Amino acid sequence: MSQVSTLNKETQIPYHESHLFKLRHSAAHLMAQAITELYPGCKLSIGPAIENGFYYDIEFSEAIKEEDLSRIEKRMKELAKLDQPITCKKAVSRDDAKNIILKECTLGQGEETAIYKLELLDAIPEGDAITFYEQSRTDRKGEKHHFIDLCRGPHVSSTKQIKHFKLMSIAGAYWRGNVKNKQLTRIYGTAFETAEELEHYLYVLEEAKKRDHRILGKELGLFMFSKNIGSGLPLWLPKGTAIREALTDFLKKEQIRRGYQGVITPHLASSKLFEKSGHLITYKDKMFPFMEDDDDQAFIMKPMNCPFHIEIYASQMRSYRELPLRLAEFGTVYRFEQSGELAGILRARSFTQDDAHLFVTPAQLEEEFLGVVELTMGVLKKLGLTDFRARVGTRDPDDSKYVGSDENWELAQKSIEYACQKIGMNYEVSQGDAAFYGPKLDLIIKDALGREWQMGTVQVDYNLPDRFQLEYIGEDGLPHRPIMIHRAPFGSLERMIGLLTEHYSGAFPFWMAPVQIAVIPIADRHIEYAEKIAHELNSYRVHLDSRRETLGKKIRENQLQKVPYMLIIGDKDIEQNTVSLRSREQGDKGSMNLEELRNYLENL
Amino acid sequence: MSQVSTLNKETQIPYHESHLFKLRHSAAHLMAQAITELYPGCKLSIGPAIENGFYYDIEFSEAIKEEDLSRIEKRMKELAKLDQPITCKKAVSRDDAKNIILKECTLGQGEETAIYKLELLDAIPEGDAITFYEQSRTDRKGEKHHFIDLCRGPHVSSTKQIKHFKLMSIAGAYWRGNVKNKQLTRIYGTAFETAEELEHYLYVLEEAKKRDHRILGKELGLFMFSKNIGSGLPLWLPKGTAIREALTDFLKKEQIRRGYQGVITPHLASSKLFEKSGHLITYKDKMFPFMEDDDDQAFIMKPMNCPFHIEIYASQMRSYRELPLRLAEFGTVYRFEQSGELAGILRARSFTQDDAHLFVTPAQLEEEFLGVVELTMGVLKKLGLTDFRARVGTRDPDDSKYVGSDENWELAQKSIEYACQKIGMNYEVSQGDAAFYGPKLDLIIKDALGREWQMGTVQVDYNLPDRFQLEYIGEDGLPHRPIMIHRAPFGSLERMIGLLTEHYSGAFPFWMAPVQIAVIPIADRHIEYAEKIAHELNSYRVHLDSRRETLGKKIRENQLQKVPYMLIIGDKDIEQNTVSLRSREQGDKGSMNLEELRNYLENL
Repeated sequence: MSQVSTLNKETQIPYHESHLFKLRHSAAHLMAQAITELYPGCKLSIGPAIENGFYYDIEFSEAIKEEDLSRIEKRMKELAKLDQPITCKKAVSRDDAKNIILKECTLGQGEETAIYKLELLDAIPEGDAITFYEQSRTDRKGEKHHFIDLCRGPHVSSTKQIKHFKLMSIAGAYWRGNVKNKQLTRIYGTAFETAEELEHYLYVLEEAKKRDHRILGKELGLFMFSKNIGSGLPLWLPKGTAIREALTDFLKKEQIRRGYQGVITPHLASSKLFEKSGHLITYKDKMFPFMEDDDDQAFIMKPMNCPFHIEIYASQMRSYRELPLRLAEFGTVYRFEQSGELAGILRARSFTQDDAHLFVTPAQLEEEFLGVVELTMGVLKKLGLTDFRARVGTRDPDDSKYVGSDENWELAQKSIEYACQKIGMNYEVSQGDAAFYGPKLDLIIKDALGREWQMGTVQVDYNLPDRFQLEYIGEDGLPHRPIMIHRAPFGSLERMIGLLTEHYSGAFPFWMAPVQIAVIPIADRHIEYAEKIAHELNSYRVHLDSRRETLGKKIRENQLQKVPYMLIIGDKDIEQNTVSLRSREQGDKGSMNLEELRNYLENL
Repeated sequence: MSQVSTLNKETQIPYHESHLFKLRHSAAHLMAQAITELYPGCKLSIGPAIENGFYYDIEFSEAIKEEDLSRIEKRMKELAKLDQPITCKKAVSRDDAKNIILKECTLGQGEETAIYKLELLDAIPEGDAITFYEQSRTDRKGEKHHFIDLCRGPHVSSTKQIKHFKLMSIAGAYWRGNVKNKQLTRIYGTAFETAEELEHYLYVLEEAKKRDHRILGKELGLFMFSKNIGSGLPLWLPKGTAIREALTDFLKKEQIRRGYQGVITPHLASSKLFEKSGHLITYKDKMFPFMEDDDDQAFIMKPMNCPFHIEIYASQMRSYRELPLRLAEFGTVYRFEQSGELAGILRARSFTQDDAHLFVTPAQLEEEFLGVVELTMGVLKKLGLTDFRARVGTRDPDDSKYVGSDENWELAQKSIEYACQKIGMNYEVSQGDAAFYGPKLDLIIKDALGREWQMGTVQVDYNLPDRFQLEYIGEDGLPHRPIMIHRAPFGSLERMIGLLTEHYSGAFPFWMAPVQIAVIPIADRHIEYAEKIAHELNSYRVHLDSRRETLGKKIRENQLQKVPYMLIIGDKDIEQNTVSLRSREQGDKGSMNLEELRNYLENL
């Protein structure tokens, strides 16, 4: 799930400094405490808080199954209620720390159980403070129990605060992430501050599972993968292709209206291009293996479209009269993600960006940026993604990594804020979040499940025009350097369609549905008329379902395929020259003639 | 120039057995004779007839320039007129042949001049006949002159027959095509049987030079290449992209009408796929360098789309009810042509086929083949390529290389002929011209210059369904093997647009012109109205030319850009709410209102 790490909106505290983060970290310790009691001799390694919860990696002497989680959870509940204070204990020296690990952390279960902790201790740099966190209690008999763990902290003050948690799943994980090391058992859990939040999270997870675009993509026939072709390289099936084309046709029209010009560039290029653009250094890890041609060059699958559009810009002398030049391409890019990082079409190895680069004069930056933001918002609205927030990434004035003049940064940051204000969009400013080559605007949308996704970044760039020494001849007859704007309202077609599939749970709006209308004759004698109707509606994506199946079965199957409208054709329809309309959401809508149907569909 | 080798239409004699071929071969000898006289000591190597003429590769002691060709040509004319008989002389032994070379071929100019001929003699397999061809004359003084050359022949009977020839150009060529050998001078010439044919050929060449798509492509801003990106990898500029989209939009609509379904597949795949398809063996030489992933696989740029569509077919169990399944894709393929073989977009390293694969039952083959031929002919007609001939490539019954049963071959060949007959298309049958995996239909079009191009091959295939073990469940409940049809009416978008650029000399028909209408306000006060007109016509590709230049200059430049229609806007037009239409071909068409203009354009 490629969601956005959320800030606490009131306080702007980053997640890793928040109370929730501490709470989850403490929940990890609580889980470890329960497990050491239930599985004596198990060896703890690390147990951090993570984006949506926490985990602990542990070496068990016996295999743990999902069924065992409820037992662990139960013990955690009991331990939490005991209101054990969680306190920090500082080791006075490395020897002291070793002593604590061998004596206290092992709980008398043998030194062998401490091997990972000892390794972790060794990895702490000389001079750094070494701390332990302890949760302890005294039982009715007056006997003291404690659990102590090598840990940087911080934690909440008592186990009593850890109320709303759940253990989620078990996975394998290599010690220190290295496949040559021993495989440990990772137990994932999550924790929240309130019961409602936990409940909502679990509901969203459950719902997300049902809406998983990989499952829906298969059920609805949108896309596929094949081992013969390779991981992460999607093949678009006819219905997925129809959605893609509905999206691209829509955006192309919008872009033409706004003076964009389409271009088409190769999917690969000589290493020379990426040397010049700088991608060969910054992106090499993400690139597909090279196609070695000769000593002088290799061909490389393109990780970005920008250098190609720059080559087009640079192919002739440009005048200020030609600017702004807006070059747009549905350009496929390639990132050699690790197999484990792939996630259907949400994270693939090849994906097609709705990319465009605007080459503008400084005087045009403000208006052009506004135009791009308007276009992007129009696109998100059309897609039904209307719940979003805006974040302006600006420069950290104390950092020296940024390229471009102060004057230009001022201008660009002002232009971005101007655009937001002009269209009345609230935004937060995130200082230090700019790229080294320019400030940017991120639109972060919230889907039907309330999950946040970063979409539609608009990025100002001073770096590439410099690297490629781009120029235009100004009104003064002298050469000037243009500014570039990068933008991609969809981000990528793959990611957007994956997101929309989950957002709509596969029930796409009429305009983008792969099959918009199913025409269903009840019996063979209705087929001829049904064919006529299907033909009359051929400006839509119509499927004629004339299979010899019962009407009930045909309606059910088209409903499962989430076809927005069905036209049921029976005797009465032929008699009265009508169709009986059935809506995916609203069921039977009554009978109407074609004229009325067209009107209805056009006003959706 | 990727033209078709032409058959003599009456006699069906292949070119290399024709009289014209002999004539050109003799012209090469005549040229060599003239050169040995004019450049004593030059060393002859080989001098064959080729597609459009002949050449001779010679080592000169001094550099030859284009200016020298007329001198050689003049001497050739004189020698031709002398009516020297060309006779064959057979060597009785290898020693005899060596003797002839050293004594007679050198013409007393030293043994050194014979080095290439001696090497050629060595290369003649033991047991083969060794022949020489001689042209000789006796001068007025009664002295005998002769020119004798090691040669397989055949030749025309006298130099007198060589009347209509011309030396064309000079190039460098390595001895035996090996860069490690000495570079020789290659002189190209051509010869024809009649003066008219030679004249026509030279006219076509001259005209073709003017229409060269590489030059027009630059002048009209259609496409570009860049060294940073790599040879043979075209970038489509906005105007070329507009043509591409006009073509693809048109074909997509036609295909939807005929029940094709669009798919989109990756540009690269694992070597496993091409191993399975057999391309790894048959196509390896033409493939881009591999992207080595691990020992088990490499990624390869796809040389063909077929295996990808097959993976889609094979991704689920298919029923006869789903057939014919017609999968269409504008699929980019990659061929690693040698740099020297590249020719703009006519021969590039990446090009986009308008590819489709039809999976059909044997019973459907006939109708589906007919449908494909109808579609292809409709496409060629729309493109204005109406002068074409058809060739059916059938199996040679005596050859054992063909796969598939006799029954299937019968069926397929009958289906192809049925399609031709049904639509009343004349065709020739070319026995032995089938691929090993199925018979085919080639459409060979003739362009505005009378040059022939092989387009729109429709190919039946029994091999790939076998290799991938494709199946469908028939009406009988049993698995059956489908037949595949490959087809691509445009061939590739690149080659087709290159051809159309030359065919139309850049003056594309209205529907595919990158800019269809230029709106030209005469003065600044006409701009507002011109903008309104441009906006009203935004369903067309309109360019508003409101530069502050004279009307004459703007008309001239739009004419040079071959814009089909200009709308000139002046005072009178604003007053009367009209536009003044100017046609690229017909000049001034008078003034009309928008309603009339729309009518006019829609009826083009």
